[in-house]
Amino acid sequence: MPELAYLNGKTLPLNEALVPIEDRGYQFGDAVYEFIASYNGKMFCMKEHLDRLQRSMEGLLFPAIDRNFIETAVLELFEKAEITRAGLYIQISRGVAPRDHAWDKDMKTQVIMTIKNVKEIPSKLREQGVDIITVQDERWSNCDIKTVQILPNAMAKQKAKAQGAFDAIFVSKDGIVREGTSSNFFIIKNEELITHPLTKNILPGITRMVVKDLAKDLGIKVEEKFLLKTDIYSADEAFLTGTLTEILGIKAIDGKSIGDSKRGEITQKLYKGLRKKAE
Amino acid sequence: MPELAYLNGKTLPLNEALVPIEDRGYQFGDAVYEFIASYNGKMFCMKEHLDRLQRSMEGLLFPAIDRNFIETAVLELFEKAEITRAGLYIQISRGVAPRDHAWDKDMKTQVIMTIKNVKEIPSKLREQGVDIITVQDERWSNCDIKTVQILPNAMAKQKAKAQGAFDAIFVSKDGIVREGTSSNFFIIKNEELITHPLTKNILPGITRMVVKDLAKDLGIKVEEKFLLKTDIYSADEAFLTGTLTEILGIKAIDGKSIGDSKRGEITQKLYKGLRKKAE
Repeated sequence: MPELAYLNGKTLPLNEALVPIEDRGYQFGDAVYEFIASYNGKMFCMKEHLDRLQRSMEGLLFPAIDRNFIETAVLELFEKAEITRAGLYIQISRGVAPRDHAWDKDMKTQVIMTIKNVKEIPSKLREQGVDIITVQDERWSNCDIKTVQILPNAMAKQKAKAQGAFDAIFVSKDGIVREGTSSNFFIIKNEELITHPLTKNILPGITRMVVKDLAKDLGIKVEEKFLLKTDIYSADEAFLTGTLTEILGIKAIDGKSIGDSKRGEITQKLYKGLRKKAE
Repeated sequence: MPELAYLNGKTLPLNEALVPIEDRGYQFGDAVYEFIASYNGKMFCMKEHLDRLQRSMEGLLFPAIDRNFIETAVLELFEKAEITRAGLYIQISRGVAPRDHAWDKDMKTQVIMTIKNVKEIPSKLREQGVDIITVQDERWSNCDIKTVQILPNAMAKQKAKAQGAFDAIFVSKDGIVREGTSSNFFIIKNEELITHPLTKNILPGITRMVVKDLAKDLGIKVEEKFLLKTDIYSADEAFLTGTLTEILGIKAIDGKSIGDSKRGEITQKLYKGLRKKAE
């Protein structure tokens, strides 16, 4: 099947899906989103993604949308597309209205979706691990809400790309390592898994949550604490997590080799665990 | 004439102007904008607005767009609309591409415009001054670039509205007063005009610049320095500046009366000067 889009109840070819220029998502970044992937024709962690989508909407004071309505729309598009390894993007904006910073309470939210084949991360990168860079976190204060305020994420990703790296991780002015541009960040040190605690400065990643569970199953201790930039270079292993990223080993940060400069053993175990769970 | 829109070279009714859902302005907030007003059929400070638009594009590493091309498009739309007191909104996004944080260097920017009659601020508010509130600045670090990353501005404006106030001004975690949700902020104390210096934390407002010139013409000393939230309540006068806001007196901040709780004398002089200059 070709790539499809969904627009307020209608399914249509992706390139025919258009929104008014006064959609607040376009002029104010007033929209939230989710990205859900399927494995072997089954959506992975759909419930968790839709839960987070609702929390994002609440965070922006959107009117409530019936959960069944969204879930049905997602599943119908997924079934129509017949893509076994699909990436489904869903974006909900506050709606369309003459441009004004404030909004009327009776606005009608605008729901769009796209579904495409997942572009897998090249297996060479999966096996060897990726290079990443650190960049200063210039984002707003509510990174726990999954909005389209992600221009700084795009800028950071582009900066990484320009330097031949795979991704960038955000570091606060005070030196605290937050997360990647579309992923959470973990290190392993002395066989302990460490990641940033859930605060307003990072996204509560679904894969982050899955990884924590997998680690527990494997008897690996998980600690949530602030890591300084100076701490991470001496990690035994490091990886990124995300819906598309899955669990992606890091071989170097800012040009400094991590561990034995390959995807580490624990990273590999966790990745296998994730694929098994998803498939 | 009805309200009009412009989309990549074509003029069309506003409600027919649509953009693809994969416009990066919609999914990443990857777009810059300007708002220009006309008085008596003449655009005010168009050059300054288009200069800033170009600086915004440079700030986001957009490919250069020929200045004449934009200026011609703006003037043609303005002439077609035949609105003497018009508000012209122009937004340029990085372009349309399959969703990916990073972008290709050969992307084609997307230019949209709208032109409408200006909704004047009610004369009662102009005469009596407005109530404003302070809110914590939760915006990103590059507020000097006029992007559509303005969800926090919209949220702050809505919060003000919900409390019966006209607008909100952002205050940093350290208590520094930045600016309004779509305006700059000034106080007058001991016959001296004080406003935030040009840093990455505020927009280099066009009206802000005009006001500084007007003050000099009137022999009023202008100082750019950081004001703390605790400083502003004791101002003799205070006002907001912006393209639509013009110069708008503030009668109370967080419920505390400013000066004699009416639009102050110097504010009034400056406002008259602005209208004279614009008309």
